[in-house]
Amino acid sequence: MPRQMDLFFFIGSVYSYFAVMRAEAAASHAGIGLRWRPFNLRAIMVEQDNVPRRNPVKPQYTWRDVERRAARHGLPWPGRPPYPVDADLLANRVAAVAAGAGWCAPYAQAIYRDWFQRHLAPGDPQHLAAVLRTLNQDPEAVLARANARDTHARFAAETDDARRLGIFGAPTIVWNGELFWGDDRLEDALAWAAAHPDG
Amino acid sequence: MPRQMDLFFFIGSVYSYFAVMRAEAAASHAGIGLRWRPFNLRAIMVEQDNVPRRNPVKPQYTWRDVERRAARHGLPWPGRPPYPVDADLLANRVAAVAAGAGWCAPYAQAIYRDWFQRHLAPGDPQHLAAVLRTLNQDPEAVLARANARDTHARFAAETDDARRLGIFGAPTIVWNGELFWGDDRLEDALAWAAAHPDG
Repeated sequence: MPRQMDLFFFIGSVYSYFAVMRAEAAASHAGIGLRWRPFNLRAIMVEQDNVPRRNPVKPQYTWRDVERRAARHGLPWPGRPPYPVDADLLANRVAAVAAGAGWCAPYAQAIYRDWFQRHLAPGDPQHLAAVLRTLNQDPEAVLARANARDTHARFAAETDDARRLGIFGAPTIVWNGELFWGDDRLEDALAWAAAHPDG
Repeated sequence: MPRQMDLFFFIGSVYSYFAVMRAEAAASHAGIGLRWRPFNLRAIMVEQDNVPRRNPVKPQYTWRDVERRAARHGLPWPGRPPYPVDADLLANRVAAVAAGAGWCAPYAQAIYRDWFQRHLAPGDPQHLAAVLRTLNQDPEAVLARANARDTHARFAAETDDARRLGIFGAPTIVWNGELFWGDDRLEDALAWAAAHPDG
């Protein structure tokens, strides 16, 4: 069993798109396991007073940067996806269920692909059900599980871990307490892991 | 005369360190000229309400990231430099003078080298005088020029240009209206310029 790298992500974070699509293959290529850790970034940003202000300039840049990075990673760009999304955090709690059951990688990739490439917003129960069926999961059972107390608790516990680690954004890749914020640090994180195999 | 790429930077911006040290050589290697454009990022951040809040978590990460990136670029890291710096913007206005006179590259590099490698804060007049002497500039004349009305005006005009372009942070590299924010986008900017030689 290889050492594991943590991928903290949040369905709603724009740059998590690239990490969700790239990290599994990149880590596997490096002989490193990937632990998928959905967490409540929204709660952490509110706690840290890190919320968008009256600054329309930065989001404009961000979308342009995301468009260029999509091209760079060979991903289609049919224009800006809906934003913000998953107001009730349902898609995120399904990710928590999926992480516990071992199918978070295909789930997160399907959700992000639909969001960015088909402009289907994460969080809508009908859409979630359709995605779950493509993954051979029982939509009714999974959605019930996502709304159950133990999933809320699991999601909160992951958020606590993120907070404890000093995470303030997503995606954040963590290797033995060393943080790498942003998909554009994925290669740095893998190089770091190779140079510091024991942390 | 090769086409020119703009480097908007602010003495006080931490990540501008790497761009200041790297951009000239990288652009020259790509056959592209570099236009040094110091501007008042502080004013723009205040206008955009983009100022650090009660969030000690992100700066902690930033300094760790900067330390790792220094190592990556082969730059010494004798610990965190003084911060913030240049309260009166004097070092920045000297940069405006230098940009007008064609010696901004060696000036900015010397100022950042002293700041990060010797922990000498930009903005102190004695230190500025010492740096100017190493560049064979007359400290008294340059500092007088930096405090003159036309330099204030030049610095304000560069800030207006930055604002008009949609700049919100530093360093920002601009190629024909296309913005690349952050030293970690320098290679992207050069690749973009190569792919879009006419903009």
